[in-house]
Amino acid sequence: MKEIQSDTHGAATQPAALPLADDMQEQMREKLLGLFGTLEEIVPGEKEITERIFSIAQNFLRAKEVTSGVDLKTLHTKFQDSQIPEGSFDIGGYLNYLTDNVIAHSMRTASPRFIGHMTSALPYFVRALATLTAAMNQNTVKMETSKVITSYERQALGMIHRLIYNFPEDFYIEHTQHSESTLGIVVSGGTLANITALWCARNSSLGATIDFAGVEKEGLHAALNYYGYQGAVVIGSRLMHYSFEKAADVLGIGTNNLVKVDVDDHNRIDLAALRRTVETCRAQNKHIIAIVGVAGATDSGSIDPLSEMADIAGEVGTHFHVDAAWCGPILFSEQHKHKLNGIDRADSVTIDGHKQLYLTMGVGMLMLRDPRLAKVIEKQARYIIRKGSFDLGRRSLEGSRPDRALLLHAALSIIGRRGYEFLIDEGIRKTQYLADIVRARPEFELLIEPEINILNYRYIPSRWREKAAHKQLDRTENELINDFNVRLQRLQRQAGDSFVSRTTLNVHSYGDDVPIVALRAVLANPLTTEADIESVIDEQRRIGDRLEAEKG
Amino acid sequence: MKEIQSDTHGAATQPAALPLADDMQEQMREKLLGLFGTLEEIVPGEKEITERIFSIAQNFLRAKEVTSGVDLKTLHTKFQDSQIPEGSFDIGGYLNYLTDNVIAHSMRTASPRFIGHMTSALPYFVRALATLTAAMNQNTVKMETSKVITSYERQALGMIHRLIYNFPEDFYIEHTQHSESTLGIVVSGGTLANITALWCARNSSLGATIDFAGVEKEGLHAALNYYGYQGAVVIGSRLMHYSFEKAADVLGIGTNNLVKVDVDDHNRIDLAALRRTVETCRAQNKHIIAIVGVAGATDSGSIDPLSEMADIAGEVGTHFHVDAAWCGPILFSEQHKHKLNGIDRADSVTIDGHKQLYLTMGVGMLMLRDPRLAKVIEKQARYIIRKGSFDLGRRSLEGSRPDRALLLHAALSIIGRRGYEFLIDEGIRKTQYLADIVRARPEFELLIEPEINILNYRYIPSRWREKAAHKQLDRTENELINDFNVRLQRLQRQAGDSFVSRTTLNVHSYGDDVPIVALRAVLANPLTTEADIESVIDEQRRIGDRLEAEKG
Repeated sequence: MKEIQSDTHGAATQPAALPLADDMQEQMREKLLGLFGTLEEIVPGEKEITERIFSIAQNFLRAKEVTSGVDLKTLHTKFQDSQIPEGSFDIGGYLNYLTDNVIAHSMRTASPRFIGHMTSALPYFVRALATLTAAMNQNTVKMETSKVITSYERQALGMIHRLIYNFPEDFYIEHTQHSESTLGIVVSGGTLANITALWCARNSSLGATIDFAGVEKEGLHAALNYYGYQGAVVIGSRLMHYSFEKAADVLGIGTNNLVKVDVDDHNRIDLAALRRTVETCRAQNKHIIAIVGVAGATDSGSIDPLSEMADIAGEVGTHFHVDAAWCGPILFSEQHKHKLNGIDRADSVTIDGHKQLYLTMGVGMLMLRDPRLAKVIEKQARYIIRKGSFDLGRRSLEGSRPDRALLLHAALSIIGRRGYEFLIDEGIRKTQYLADIVRARPEFELLIEPEINILNYRYIPSRWREKAAHKQLDRTENELINDFNVRLQRLQRQAGDSFVSRTTLNVHSYGDDVPIVALRAVLANPLTTEADIESVIDEQRRIGDRLEAEKG
Repeated sequence: MKEIQSDTHGAATQPAALPLADDMQEQMREKLLGLFGTLEEIVPGEKEITERIFSIAQNFLRAKEVTSGVDLKTLHTKFQDSQIPEGSFDIGGYLNYLTDNVIAHSMRTASPRFIGHMTSALPYFVRALATLTAAMNQNTVKMETSKVITSYERQALGMIHRLIYNFPEDFYIEHTQHSESTLGIVVSGGTLANITALWCARNSSLGATIDFAGVEKEGLHAALNYYGYQGAVVIGSRLMHYSFEKAADVLGIGTNNLVKVDVDDHNRIDLAALRRTVETCRAQNKHIIAIVGVAGATDSGSIDPLSEMADIAGEVGTHFHVDAAWCGPILFSEQHKHKLNGIDRADSVTIDGHKQLYLTMGVGMLMLRDPRLAKVIEKQARYIIRKGSFDLGRRSLEGSRPDRALLLHAALSIIGRRGYEFLIDEGIRKTQYLADIVRARPEFELLIEPEINILNYRYIPSRWREKAAHKQLDRTENELINDFNVRLQRLQRQAGDSFVSRTTLNVHSYGDDVPIVALRAVLANPLTTEADIESVIDEQRRIGDRLEAEKG
């Protein structure tokens, strides 16, 4: 490159870049290569920038409020310009901009008063290790760019497999490091894990025969024609996570063929209804790709009766998948693990590392009972992931992917079984603490008895408290209370001091056809104290009072 | 939790945890909460651990060799045990273990002599910012856990959209921050981007009508029946990335319906053959979901004639997708961007941030010409991503996902248009440097003239050099040379001083049915000097000599 040409591509909207003189070129080269460091020495700038970012991160984490009060419209205006910058080569300047304009308006998901979603404070070694994994920049798709990390990931997956299935030692000796065995697949999150589970289930149940190449090669249309089915379905409770909608769509099944079964008073799948649904599908000659058990509904934390579901799946010979993205780590708790009884009979289980394993966002896992199941999704290429290789990308929806297993391995080693047990038990204990407050205060109504560490409740304006106490509210009154709670939740979020989320539930006592807006608290942050819980509730009470006063 | 019960779940293989006395419980609580820090002050341990990890990372990055010589079998033995640890609460001890057993055997993908895959040294601010994004731990699935980062991601995507499409300013004013517009989708990598592209193409081309709910809801079987097609296909060159095999499988299309068209002498799709394929599919009543253009074949870096492919796609009214995972950033180069002419006519374009934008692993993007296209994959849920919201998870294959856009935004601002132009031009220049060496040395044969910064060549043992120079090798001789190059590449990788990858090509001059094993160099690391290139080649010459000597 002799000189930078004037920019015709971007001419319409972008000032043309001026040709640079040779010495300016050389200056740019130096600045640019400086950003990549040298081999001989630590770039002085790197240490300084790293320390500065450490401080910025600490300042962010130390503040207790959830976010600034700046509204979304203002933010949109700030980030409207989409011209491509010419390049400042100025990291310090960028950090100034970032601190003032971005970090100041970010959500403090680690705040002890942010108890509305499944994001929490993280152990500090996770943050520190994030720099290390970025520096190592391994690509776990193949041995040639990950080597030892491949074995390390397999080991960590072996541990999680034990947590769920606890097979005899021989099983793990054989499979943990065997290139043809897949105990689990690390993915970016629970959604990809659920999609991968149904992908495996679809491909293994509509596989190749002596005169048919299987759904993988021939597609779903040909497979259903070949096998003589009228369609294909996936069955689970109506509280299945919306990622199953994505899965049903992507996999060509169709979201209308995601059959949603009703739930009982405890938000667990109605087993009689499940049996009827299974029978109906079979009578209609519809292929049941999988039955899905929910282990931790996103709304309420409810857990399906997994053992009984495993029985039903076994009777009809269909794949049984359990979505334990949230609840999987409850298996660490001696006191609560019985709630997941039967999970070891699932053909596949989804667990999220970035939820109750307290890892950074972007670590999901699909665990597989049968180490050979994932063969049905295997792919090869001649430049990488050749047949028989140890390359993890052979059996994975993703291709190139970051090393997420080092964090998992570190957390399992440092926090371990006892540490996770403590964290799980504490979250459930604090949820009971919040439930007690809600029960005791007339301003609130507990909507569902909590199964684990998620609580659904709502604010009841004073004029309806008497009726609410006797569950005598009619549809119109519930609709008015719904509006009230929507406004309350929004005001609390906008004020930025604390946060709970909201959802819409069906509560049996009010009739299944009456949608009830609920405030939804998730108690998973180890830094959340009883005082924090009280202050969140107090703020809701204050906002409720104010809203009632405004209405007159 | 009163006391830890004896562990029945893990009893068969794990020593039962002893009950802890109350004061031991309290000790554990303190240690554990210490890992999560406190709000009042910076935990002294955190600063120390962070500094130590900085040193570990620097030591790793400073060394020039690619990896240790320890073989895979030894590593498997090291990481065989899958017992779940009880929890050490000892970060320092874990770091010692990690340094000796894991980091020592990792691949130094940043080494200037690691020129075999699409991984490179990274600018140091990317590593430093990785800690920040881990600390912020935003979940970009929804505003309530990401707020400003949602707008920031949209802004960065606007910049990349301009790079490809460069629409008038009005377009960007309207769409960049509009909740119903999707200029691009951030995903974990190119594979998910390609899958998402074909997902959009499938759903939009087999959509709802007055009497059919569309493929999204009814599934692919019903959709093809309704529209009266015999099947569905995706068409591209036989050099399409293997992620399209995954896409064809996952989406229910079937890998046999991924129709692969032959390439010309320059590894570009044969346009006449493409036209014939399109005609055949139409004659067979097969629905063409998309035509795929390759902009940077993984093997060779070749780029399809995108403009002509856009013409053909336009004539038949099918979706035109360009996989520019590798080559997208070439658009920054005034000198080379013409190689991508026609990319602005693609309906969708895949670009990887972790490739030639020099971001950490795990940043992919799908860019969309029509901001409303992604509506065909939209999903909602009542707890999040409600209709009309700004939540990015509404239109995304992934659910919860980390903030990847801050890194992209930072790199676009700091490196910018000029910086990326320099990096792209330098890589291509160095590739020509390597090509010149290969041409000049009798030990090597250049297999394909490089289009960009990927080079395919091979070692020719002395007895075949004369024949090779005149392209007169027959199949048997080529097979022997193939074996030789497989061994050479493996020995170089195992020695760990430098690395090139290998692939298997069809080289027209030897006949299309003769597979040729190629050494494959990727020249994208800004730290790679001419001396590094020479040393990699010298090592290959030495290994080749030795192999020839051993054979006698």
